[in-house]
Amino acid sequence: MIELKEAAKILKAAKKIAITAHTNPDGDAIGSTLAMMHALKKAGKEAFVLIDDELPRHLSCLPGFNEIIRPNETDKITADILLVLDTATDRIGCVEKIVSAKILNIDHHVTNKGEHEATYVDATAAATAEIVFDLLKLMEVPLDIDIANCLYLGMATDTGFFKYANTKSRTLKAAADCLEAGVRPNEISEFTEQKSFETVHTMVLALNTIELFANGRAAGIFLDEELTNKAETTEGFIDQIRIIEGVDIAVLLKCKKAGECRVSMRSKGKDVAKIAESFGGGGHVRAAGATLKLPFDEAKRTVIDAITKALED
Amino acid sequence: MIELKEAAKILKAAKKIAITAHTNPDGDAIGSTLAMMHALKKAGKEAFVLIDDELPRHLSCLPGFNEIIRPNETDKITADILLVLDTATDRIGCVEKIVSAKILNIDHHVTNKGEHEATYVDATAAATAEIVFDLLKLMEVPLDIDIANCLYLGMATDTGFFKYANTKSRTLKAAADCLEAGVRPNEISEFTEQKSFETVHTMVLALNTIELFANGRAAGIFLDEELTNKAETTEGFIDQIRIIEGVDIAVLLKCKKAGECRVSMRSKGKDVAKIAESFGGGGHVRAAGATLKLPFDEAKRTVIDAITKALED
Repeated sequence: MIELKEAAKILKAAKKIAITAHTNPDGDAIGSTLAMMHALKKAGKEAFVLIDDELPRHLSCLPGFNEIIRPNETDKITADILLVLDTATDRIGCVEKIVSAKILNIDHHVTNKGEHEATYVDATAAATAEIVFDLLKLMEVPLDIDIANCLYLGMATDTGFFKYANTKSRTLKAAADCLEAGVRPNEISEFTEQKSFETVHTMVLALNTIELFANGRAAGIFLDEELTNKAETTEGFIDQIRIIEGVDIAVLLKCKKAGECRVSMRSKGKDVAKIAESFGGGGHVRAAGATLKLPFDEAKRTVIDAITKALED
Repeated sequence: MIELKEAAKILKAAKKIAITAHTNPDGDAIGSTLAMMHALKKAGKEAFVLIDDELPRHLSCLPGFNEIIRPNETDKITADILLVLDTATDRIGCVEKIVSAKILNIDHHVTNKGEHEATYVDATAAATAEIVFDLLKLMEVPLDIDIANCLYLGMATDTGFFKYANTKSRTLKAAADCLEAGVRPNEISEFTEQKSFETVHTMVLALNTIELFANGRAAGIFLDEELTNKAETTEGFIDQIRIIEGVDIAVLLKCKKAGECRVSMRSKGKDVAKIAESFGGGGHVRAAGATLKLPFDEAKRTVIDAITKALED
């Protein structure tokens, strides 16, 4: 593990920097890598982003998005530094094998144990973009509108637009600096929150299945095989029932194929990891999940019973 | 009109301060008044909040909420200062008549023309709570957790949790200071975003009426008389369709009673005020509304036709 100022020194000394992040990239992965690309170019370096996966369309508003390279397994790339952001080096797909360079790893996930010597992890940061914000200060690269848009989006998406418990004073201060550099928060949120008509339509069908149970202390959305396979994504579905007054546990049950169901739970207080563990799953106190090898109706009954029992304790 | 430091001086010189805000109070009205109440008490003053209306239940998490007084028209109250927040003095109900005191008016609405000499309006502030934040600095009253929770909620609710275009760098910096004083953003958002099961259920029924039209450039929710009267509130309904990809204009049509419908429109670009004006209504470029003296089916057809035509131009 290294200090952040050492990371700054390593980057300052490099000429050609390949930047990557985890597969199945989210707003923080794309935002952080693109922010670094813009900043390093501004500092006179050669810099490019490699991501070994499809990119989420709703992030295409970010400057530089179209320059992101999806590498082939047969590529051979050399660089001074491979900068790995928002993950340890085990989730970067083929980039790990095809790039020949010294690794610099910067991340905010507490699970990153620093396999490489040049690793900086700050688990108190809400997003990797927040660390990149600090790093650019150390490197004396001033924010411009492109860097600021990328950093702002990274922080906004990892904090549920500054609503989650991980949002700290320093997150909002960094976001404030991004606004000063010209970011328009309404445009970023309008763009990233877009959903296809099909997704909204499927959400409505899903919401028609809402059931309250455990004397109103739990609410569930129960998607049978047909509904599950209709849904392009179920992101945000559970948030629609989590907000119901009096509900402690919100649950989403999906049946991907006959005899196999996936349950996701969110709570405001009750330990849902315990409930998930009773099904052989796991997670955190407030967010947990499990797979049940049961037909839909039986899985639904089992989940409702377990949550009801847990809330009675 | 006065400067903010003069407002600070006036409050410092006063001993007994009555504080009020507009009827139909929102998060900024309640947050600003309670923040001032806590701050003035802390500064050794007698201070209390009068609101001539029912209070929204979802703000009951705020410290001091239960101390807010709903006055009677027959009350007679004397104070050194009546501090009117978040409105001009024409929207404070019976408080205007029953309180005998010198008026100090602080507001962020550009429509406030400063009827009273001691009026401070900053229309660049996203919320009155943002002005109160500055005022407390001038008065040298440090933030504590109670003041900070009230100010944070005021700013968060008036900016759609920091997503609207009115969110500025100074808003986020003030919010950052509130977090430093101990505010937990997740708790504030969880509490204020709560909805009753009935409201969520009605929203689902409403969402079942979604129609895309004008080649997917507009989306509407159309509530007939039965559905309209089932809905306790329709707040947030239109946001569910505004996010559909490709949709410029989102429209909500409600039929409160036979032969009278209310249309609300939101746009990402097109001037919906013009469309509203064609129905005898009005508003802003991006948010406008009108009342149509037509039966539901006819009103729906009329609205769809007008929006389709506007989007063709």
